[in-house]
Amino acid sequence: MNDWIEARRAEIDRALAGILPAPPECPPPVGDAMRYSLTAGGKRLRPILCLASAEAVGGDRALAMPAACAIELIHTYSLIHDDLPAMDNDTMRRGRPTLHVVAGEGMAILAGDGLLTEAFHLMAREPRIDDPAIASRKLRAIARVAAAAGPLGMVGGQAIDLACVTPDPSGRLAPPLDAAALETMHAMKTGALIRASAAAGAIMGEGADAQIDAIDRAAAELGLAFQIVDDILDIEGASADLGKTAGKDAAAGKPTYPARYGLDASRRMAAECLGRAEAALRGGGIADGRLLEIGRWIVERSN
Amino acid sequence: MNDWIEARRAEIDRALAGILPAPPECPPPVGDAMRYSLTAGGKRLRPILCLASAEAVGGDRALAMPAACAIELIHTYSLIHDDLPAMDNDTMRRGRPTLHVVAGEGMAILAGDGLLTEAFHLMAREPRIDDPAIASRKLRAIARVAAAAGPLGMVGGQAIDLACVTPDPSGRLAPPLDAAALETMHAMKTGALIRASAAAGAIMGEGADAQIDAIDRAAAELGLAFQIVDDILDIEGASADLGKTAGKDAAAGKPTYPARYGLDASRRMAAECLGRAEAALRGGGIADGRLLEIGRWIVERSN
Repeated sequence: MNDWIEARRAEIDRALAGILPAPPECPPPVGDAMRYSLTAGGKRLRPILCLASAEAVGGDRALAMPAACAIELIHTYSLIHDDLPAMDNDTMRRGRPTLHVVAGEGMAILAGDGLLTEAFHLMAREPRIDDPAIASRKLRAIARVAAAAGPLGMVGGQAIDLACVTPDPSGRLAPPLDAAALETMHAMKTGALIRASAAAGAIMGEGADAQIDAIDRAAAELGLAFQIVDDILDIEGASADLGKTAGKDAAAGKPTYPARYGLDASRRMAAECLGRAEAALRGGGIADGRLLEIGRWIVERSN
Repeated sequence: MNDWIEARRAEIDRALAGILPAPPECPPPVGDAMRYSLTAGGKRLRPILCLASAEAVGGDRALAMPAACAIELIHTYSLIHDDLPAMDNDTMRRGRPTLHVVAGEGMAILAGDGLLTEAFHLMAREPRIDDPAIASRKLRAIARVAAAAGPLGMVGGQAIDLACVTPDPSGRLAPPLDAAALETMHAMKTGALIRASAAAGAIMGEGADAQIDAIDRAAAELGLAFQIVDDILDIEGASADLGKTAGKDAAAGKPTYPARYGLDASRRMAAECLGRAEAALRGGGIADGRLLEIGRWIVERSN
């Protein structure tokens, strides 16, 4: 992990620690629940990618910090809801009991709802509320992030995933997804928000449209690499490193990249994503190497 | 019900019918689930209030239509999540089985998440994407609605309500809310989004700050009247009219206005809200009578 990434993560953790509404205005049960999940650690990949993208287009990363934090709120809400008994039914996350285990299902649902809502509250308000010079960029970033998080993106991908493991009224499961459908599902469930993190950073960093497009395309490759490596780690990783149960996807019979292509080919595919990301950035005239360093971190990580 | 309100409701229903993302981009399981709840009818009070407020400040109600629809998406999501087994565990809503009964809990959670996210997508995009002249107003409306829907508003109110009926680890319930705490809970859970509906309409209708403030204060009274009448209808109403089980709140021992003050005093309190709403509007120089007609509808409704 390089110093720049480490410094940004610390900066983001500090910003997140002060971002949630506090008592007495915010009722403690839901405020505490939101904070429990938001401060549980995590890689902060999405906000780091957002800040790096703002700098990659020559912008001030401070302008992208609210969007970066908002995206981490959205990512955190998605983990809380995905972990619920009615979804993936996970009891451990980031090395701690999941929120519904400690706060109950109802409060976990509400905490997720609260984090998602606060994300848009934050992006609308900051930075520089009422500055017309960046108002249009803020709206564009909000629209981009919302599209990526909603039914055409993350929520839609999760719905496809859920439908695959949910029997119909006659008790039958839908046929397993083919390779193309699996890729679409991952692109929606995981890739869309990773892409939007980079795009929102480039938008808030006042990038030109060609720069934003190049970053968007590069981030799509990073998102795919992220998913492939996630699948590899599910097989190879130690539960202690992952902070969640390793092997769970494979045991559940979920279609994964290693299951379909084998471990070696999966590793090669992840590396090829980095190559295509590099080409996309070069094509858009983006010389900043940090996005590729983030790419290497994604591929080489152990959790 | 007067003609203007009826015409607006039809207009809103038409707009809502075309607003959700469609297949193939939107996966059918979650798209269908979102549509099931959004098109289940409903009074459309919040969007009607939003459009009326835009006109009350002399604005074009078309500018407020995206916000009006977005708020109905948010209201619909909140009903879906509130009805879940982990929350109020309601099986009927608007005369039909609740979404989790027909689509399963997981898909109901996702449909709620999708509606909430799409609401902000819509408000960021429309009306007139990229028109800098109204960009700041759109951000202000988004911030206002998000604040009202989040942990300082609707989500927070629901969390207080949930905490009241959830035993702690030793099996004990929190003491019942006193009158002031009950009023705060309702103001957050129901009042905040009703207020924000009116405020967002006045903002998008290009109202002056004094007009927006007056409408905001009047709408706070309408929200309180709404809650009081809701409690009265829970006792007096027929389940068929309500489209949900009458008497449920009273049977659950929830603190209601009639339980605390009696039916006659509760009716008087609702009427007094209208009087204060009228005074607030007059104080802000708003002569338009439609907001008060909406107030009378709120007080005289049977569902």
